[in-house]
Amino acid sequence: MPVLTRLVPSPLVVDVRSGALDHLGEVLANPGIASTGRIAVAVSNGSGATLRQRLAPQLPGAAWFTVEDGTLDAAVKLADQIKGGHYDAVVGLGGGKIIDVAKYAAARVGLPVVAVATNLAHDGLCSPVSTLDNDAGRGSYGVPSPIAMIVDLDVIRQAPARYVAAGIGDAVSNISCIADWELSQRETGEAVDGLAAAMSRTAGETILRHPGTIADNDFLVALAEALVLTGISMNVAGSSRPASGACHEINHALDILYPERKGQHGEQCGLGAAFATYLRGDLPVAGQMVAALRRHGLPVTADQIGFSEEEFGKAVQFAPQTRPGRYTILEHLDLSPSAIRDAYSSYVKDVCS
Amino acid sequence: MPVLTRLVPSPLVVDVRSGALDHLGEVLANPGIASTGRIAVAVSNGSGATLRQRLAPQLPGAAWFTVEDGTLDAAVKLADQIKGGHYDAVVGLGGGKIIDVAKYAAARVGLPVVAVATNLAHDGLCSPVSTLDNDAGRGSYGVPSPIAMIVDLDVIRQAPARYVAAGIGDAVSNISCIADWELSQRETGEAVDGLAAAMSRTAGETILRHPGTIADNDFLVALAEALVLTGISMNVAGSSRPASGACHEINHALDILYPERKGQHGEQCGLGAAFATYLRGDLPVAGQMVAALRRHGLPVTADQIGFSEEEFGKAVQFAPQTRPGRYTILEHLDLSPSAIRDAYSSYVKDVCS
Amino acid sequence: MPVLTRLVPSPLVVDVRSGALDHLGEVLANPGIASTGRIAVAVSNGSGATLRQRLAPQLPGAAWFTVEDGTLDAAVKLADQIKGGHYDAVVGLGGGKIIDVAKYAAARVGLPVVAVATNLAHDGLCSPVSTLDNDAGRGSYGVPSPIAMIVDLDVIRQAPARYVAAGIGDAVSNISCIADWELSQRETGEAVDGLAAAMSRTAGETILRHPGTIADNDFLVALAEALVLTGISMNVAGSSRPASGACHEINHALDILYPERKGQHGEQCGLGAAFATYLRGDLPVAGQMVAALRRHGLPVTADQIGFSEEEFGKAVQFAPQTRPGRYTILEHLDLSPSAIRDAYSSYVKDVCS
Amino acid sequence: MPVLTRLVPSPLVVDVRSGALDHLGEVLANPGIASTGRIAVAVSNGSGATLRQRLAPQLPGAAWFTVEDGTLDAAVKLADQIKGGHYDAVVGLGGGKIIDVAKYAAARVGLPVVAVATNLAHDGLCSPVSTLDNDAGRGSYGVPSPIAMIVDLDVIRQAPARYVAAGIGDAVSNISCIADWELSQRETGEAVDGLAAAMSRTAGETILRHPGTIADNDFLVALAEALVLTGISMNVAGSSRPASGACHEINHALDILYPERKGQHGEQCGLGAAFATYLRGDLPVAGQMVAALRRHGLPVTADQIGFSEEEFGKAVQFAPQTRPGRYTILEHLDLSPSAIRDAYSSYVKDVCS
Repeated sequence: MPVLTRLVPSPLVVDVRSGALDHLGEVLANPGIASTGRIAVAVSNGSGATLRQRLAPQLPGAAWFTVEDGTLDAAVKLADQIKGGHYDAVVGLGGGKIIDVAKYAAARVGLPVVAVATNLAHDGLCSPVSTLDNDAGRGSYGVPSPIAMIVDLDVIRQAPARYVAAGIGDAVSNISCIADWELSQRETGEAVDGLAAAMSRTAGETILRHPGTIADNDFLVALAEALVLTGISMNVAGSSRPASGACHEINHALDILYPERKGQHGEQCGLGAAFATYLRGDLPVAGQMVAALRRHGLPVTADQIGFSEEEFGKAVQFAPQTRPGRYTILEHLDLSPSAIRDAYSSYVKDVCS
Repeated sequence: MPVLTRLVPSPLVVDVRSGALDHLGEVLANPGIASTGRIAVAVSNGSGATLRQRLAPQLPGAAWFTVEDGTLDAAVKLADQIKGGHYDAVVGLGGGKIIDVAKYAAARVGLPVVAVATNLAHDGLCSPVSTLDNDAGRGSYGVPSPIAMIVDLDVIRQAPARYVAAGIGDAVSNISCIADWELSQRETGEAVDGLAAAMSRTAGETILRHPGTIADNDFLVALAEALVLTGISMNVAGSSRPASGACHEINHALDILYPERKGQHGEQCGLGAAFATYLRGDLPVAGQMVAALRRHGLPVTADQIGFSEEEFGKAVQFAPQTRPGRYTILEHLDLSPSAIRDAYSSYVKDVCS
Repeated sequence: MPVLTRLVPSPLVVDVRSGALDHLGEVLANPGIASTGRIAVAVSNGSGATLRQRLAPQLPGAAWFTVEDGTLDAAVKLADQIKGGHYDAVVGLGGGKIIDVAKYAAARVGLPVVAVATNLAHDGLCSPVSTLDNDAGRGSYGVPSPIAMIVDLDVIRQAPARYVAAGIGDAVSNISCIADWELSQRETGEAVDGLAAAMSRTAGETILRHPGTIADNDFLVALAEALVLTGISMNVAGSSRPASGACHEINHALDILYPERKGQHGEQCGLGAAFATYLRGDLPVAGQMVAALRRHGLPVTADQIGFSEEEFGKAVQFAPQTRPGRYTILEHLDLSPSAIRDAYSSYVKDVCS
Repeated sequence: MPVLTRLVPSPLVVDVRSGALDHLGEVLANPGIASTGRIAVAVSNGSGATLRQRLAPQLPGAAWFTVEDGTLDAAVKLADQIKGGHYDAVVGLGGGKIIDVAKYAAARVGLPVVAVATNLAHDGLCSPVSTLDNDAGRGSYGVPSPIAMIVDLDVIRQAPARYVAAGIGDAVSNISCIADWELSQRETGEAVDGLAAAMSRTAGETILRHPGTIADNDFLVALAEALVLTGISMNVAGSSRPASGACHEINHALDILYPERKGQHGEQCGLGAAFATYLRGDLPVAGQMVAALRRHGLPVTADQIGFSEEEFGKAVQFAPQTRPGRYTILEHLDLSPSAIRDAYSSYVKDVCS
């Protein structure tokens, strides 16, 4: 039998450093990205204008498009604008919303997408998933992963702290996602992809235990790299499984039940992960998660994110319906409303106090 | 021409869990590994016999080969024995030495290799490098990475502690390797592959800060997964660069200058990494490395590994000659013998006391 | 570190023979392709229906998708249809357009692609490049190479002669591409990969001098195999360099400047190769190319492909802009419009008459 | 199922050009070959001395070894001399014999081998087979393929013509080898590896029809590249099958039966291929082979190589015993001695006159 190997789809370029934006033109000129320089750049109508002013001289072949918001509509509109423009690649230059819009639009028109992140709010920066607001709340759309991910630490340090810290919650939640996957392996025989698990879990644990803060370059590098590995882990698995467990089901449920009070994805996932880990009976790790989230100013209880205990309980109960077919600690325990209430009270008492 | 994705050669199977050996037959029967069951299994002549007795019933199509030691001669002999046997794959079942011998032999005869590790002594378990003793000390040979890596935690816990702890030194040294690479990027313009850096560094940082010990399953999983990611980072880069810097040059120099007193690869690399990090002026991380190595019983000074200060100094001076063309903090500082002596004394005083 | 071998990504299966389609089910069931039989088959809405009727009984697990045309839109649509369908592989069953669409869609969804060619129009059948019509003419996209290439000679003999003969032009143009690469080596110091050059050039020379016609099985086998080797040469080089020089720049320029009158890729490349070879001063080989192209009914002058001398001259002038960074005889000579006109007149007089 | 690819072991460097020897030092310094410059160079005791004088200044880290002849004894002796010398690679600098000795010795000591060919006598220059004289005549030994193949056309042009022309016979014989393999597929169900067949056959056909002579650079490049592709085809197949059929069985039989009158490998294989092709009933290709061999001064009848008809007939009869298990036209026809005699007479009459 011939010698085979497995091929994991991965970004061609990962450029995480201070001053990365000063090299953006060079990086985009990479043969394999946009050697002719013809790119479509999506920016927000807020901070996007400043970035455009700064970067336009470096990118003479760029066409600039302003994205209104992180909605499916905005993504479809962007796709329509880009179509026919003869570009080599689409660049999403902004926070998670802009990048998700760019990913979706690029997928529609069939071009590779480059993520130039101005915050580190979630693991969608380098993943095969685009999360967009639609009429039903929020939807996740499978798209190709970015061909390049560029993070300028100087830019990240100017982002609102909340939009950087949120990524910590998303990264840390990986640990709970893999625990859910391994639970399903034991209980339902579902196959775990050990390579995807290794990437996602290692990324989560690095962030769980890193002593730095979002003011430190070292920590920001670790966070950006953790989000890259998480994105690749989804490519490895061919699904969001390695980065989406009970924590993400709770997050989706909160989005769907209370669309107007949406916390950030990473905030909700971090809380969900600590609670799910508690439900799995792993108090030491649940405690470490709570400590880490708190240290970075992230919510660890429902009220800190604007939900009553009852509202949170309803979301936990509804959560399994957001991902039919995914087996996590929630599907495993299949708790009654009162059992959920009790479990949450114990979580708050045992882990958060 | 825009490229839609980059493909990274990676292991088809990563199976890290308690009782993984009970599933070895199934895993090897995977299409892409050895679907006909005809495998050549390399084992040591010590603990290998016990493993053979246990596993033979699961592996009816296996031929068993006893490997004398971790030498180039043993690897060539194994290749000669395997050649012409019409096997689907070679399985290295044992510690780092057996696996390095199996990797080399498989490369010679053009078969995929499966690493079934009984200890976690170094990152060669899942990498494209085979390190073997030859007449001149130790040599490194570029080979294809294992197609599968299997780690049974129950087996690892029975390994001599020193052969598990050593892997910690090798994993932690990644941090120093990436710092050397980034130094070279700034000083010589060498291109850093950000994806390889993300994998290697994240692996190193997870182990640097993991609170567990080699008696804990959680820690063993983290260590095994860190070694897997390190191996893949070398595939990404197409060289050992992301996992071999000044620390590894010092390690090679110790091997070459003092062949009869060889410490373990991971022990020497860990010490080398702490010292190289100190030389780069990063005292906080050098201190964290020393603390982590000590906590796991690993050497942090030359005498703990059996070398005098003078011997260690000579090795540091000789180190750059072991990897011509690689730029690290050693090539950058180009220290005189007395400067090396002074730096080492300061390291011991500032970081190790 | 000495390396024991270089590993070139290559197709698992190359099946070129009369009646190959009768074995399609077996071949696809190969471990490493689609062992469960769940495949997505892309066919044209013309001859595709007949093929579907014939092959459906052999492929009980296949889902069939009709592809409208060779556009980027059609490829994106196919990717959307396939996504989430839990297929093992995508099969492109048709001519170059269908296969290019299938390659692109498979890359988008992360599945291996199998090329079942019903004509031999170009070297994209087994290459890491997908060429698709987009709003700006035609674009080239880097994608993974097919894991298998299947050519049934009985089917090829029923294809329109023009769609088989065109592949001859693409194959013969290899000779000019390698000459351009070697020119760049001498003039700019660009590294030539001698292995890629050997594969591409040998493929081109075999077709240049083969005495057969597209009515002969022997010739069709030689042509199919030449296209396979050309595809692999691009994997070896990691770019289209070994199969894309001045000839392909001229071809791209014709596509961009005159989108409505596009000749076939292979026809334009063949003419471009003869002219570029003439520009390099190699009259004997230019003459052999013209003779070979003519013998197979392929165009050797611009008017035979529907362009005036002036139009062709404009394309030659524009050609270097289609591949920034690629150095060929066109960039080397940097001819003025009048010099291009003169050169083309001499080419017609010296070589084509 | 994860996306897999097939990996074909191939040379890292193929450097075929005028003046290649002037760059030998650079090429060998390639990371992956011998970045430290420590190489063992095997040369003949004839022309080797001149080459050593010329190249020694470029190769300061080289140790030079004189090889007596192309015997197994000489190869074992070389291995013993090299062992313990701490080299990164072995360089075989000379004709086919020296390279075969170097390949065998390098395999014994476990080092990669570089082939620097001073003639083009056979396809062993870049193949996984070493052919050496032993007490029983000649033996073929499976070894790793060279990691690099270097051919300086200026050197080749100074080689005795017979040692260049012989390679033509070996290359052309590929066509017969693949025809034998396909015959076996039809008759015995043996699997043909289509990729190996494509490489070997394309190489053979290029040489069959190339109009040049061994005085032309173009032709020498084509011949060197054809031999490289032939070598890789054996790596692809994992055996000598794509380059060894009835023609090679006849060649082996001549070597064994008449050891003292051995023609060159390539001469005997070329004659064997023409005769085997005739036996398969393919008169047109047999005729093309005879014409090509003649044009290059190669023998096309037994007497031109020093054998009587009767001697040749005995060899044809004995041939199948030289490769038990290989099915070719000889095993298929299973001719009686008189039938062989008749067939050979007809061959001489029909094809050679």
